[in-house]
Amino acid sequence: MPKLYGIGVGPGDPELMTLKALKILERVEILFVPKSGVGLCIALDIVKKAINKDFRIVKLYFPMTKDKRKLEEHWDIASKAVEEALKDGSEGAFITLGDPLFYSTFSYLMPRILDLGIDIEVIPGVTSISSCSASHRITLVAGDEKLAVIPAAYGLENLEHIAEEFDTVVLIKVSRNYNKIVDKIKELGLEEKALFMSRCGGEGFRAERLEEKGERNVDYLSMIIIR
Amino acid sequence: MPKLYGIGVGPGDPELMTLKALKILERVEILFVPKSGVGLCIALDIVKKAINKDFRIVKLYFPMTKDKRKLEEHWDIASKAVEEALKDGSEGAFITLGDPLFYSTFSYLMPRILDLGIDIEVIPGVTSISSCSASHRITLVAGDEKLAVIPAAYGLENLEHIAEEFDTVVLIKVSRNYNKIVDKIKELGLEEKALFMSRCGGEGFRAERLEEKGERNVDYLSMIIIR
Repeated sequence: MPKLYGIGVGPGDPELMTLKALKILERVEILFVPKSGVGLCIALDIVKKAINKDFRIVKLYFPMTKDKRKLEEHWDIASKAVEEALKDGSEGAFITLGDPLFYSTFSYLMPRILDLGIDIEVIPGVTSISSCSASHRITLVAGDEKLAVIPAAYGLENLEHIAEEFDTVVLIKVSRNYNKIVDKIKELGLEEKALFMSRCGGEGFRAERLEEKGERNVDYLSMIIIR
Repeated sequence: MPKLYGIGVGPGDPELMTLKALKILERVEILFVPKSGVGLCIALDIVKKAINKDFRIVKLYFPMTKDKRKLEEHWDIASKAVEEALKDGSEGAFITLGDPLFYSTFSYLMPRILDLGIDIEVIPGVTSISSCSASHRITLVAGDEKLAVIPAAYGLENLEHIAEEFDTVVLIKVSRNYNKIVDKIKELGLEEKALFMSRCGGEGFRAERLEEKGERNVDYLSMIIIR
């Protein structure tokens, strides 16, 4: 019976992959790789660093657009490609940076694959948020504290209010509109509580207080923690 | 030079430990184990299942109290015990269920250890939240969705408002006041969106819709996802 593993390969360092992820990747022949901007190279690079093996790689294209019809069309194409590749009863693995059900394209693919009658097992992974807090030895949340995670690229209308209610606010996807986001944080007087971080746990890892000057290398994996 | 690793051993399944955690645990001799109710057995059990080795185990007692003075006293005692155990320049590992900086007692120990001039490296782990969503193949968050994580034992005054603002609300620490929490969720008409989960990814794992009847085995690791 065909089976698809949704595998979180962790935040960047191949050693932050789980034993279970490694074991499954050592066994399967087919690797489904999401292709959408930066994501592709990173998840596949992590696997290649961890395992020296020739996979049969099937690239699944997920365009970076907000056009819902276009997206659904591509998710359907992708799920058909998975079905086709697994039709002889094979097992395959869809790899994703971080965790498969935490801001990953896997969430869009999963229901379609299940509809096609293909079994799915999800292997959770270490998120980039955990990796960032570990790299900086900054507590994410403790005790009775509340945590909010917000994709900042889509607007920050209620940030003031959320920052009052929550002890820690993590802004992800800050590369688009980065300057606007920083302006908003400064406007709310939160800049002293904010820490900018990029590629935590991976290569090129860095962090700085938001109020520090200088050009920033803002990438897809950058985030800002307000605490 | 003495060094303390803060190691997240993941949510329960020993295979959900990272390669890095395993590598460090295979090397160090001293294991610091937080002792506070259920936590002790689980983190240590995970390590014992993953590694067949005789560690020198140092138990650190963290009482489950809200008395801040009492807590600080115990954290100070714990950090002195770590200093004492590592004084000859050894390396040791503090193990914690899930991730060390995500609702772990390690957050209270860490600044004290750093103040004592002992180096710390934090190894992030897979959280119970990721494990729960993986076990159930439920997307935690995707795309532009917002996530809130709330320790429910301390009151849910603003739950209605938070559930409006956030796409996914994860209530953790639901074992204390479980019935009150369920009443609150029902009062707000959110029960159809809520899923109760316990011991995700570990032994005794189960999940059910909140509206289903029957006695529940609510444990320390139980959580409710509202989505």
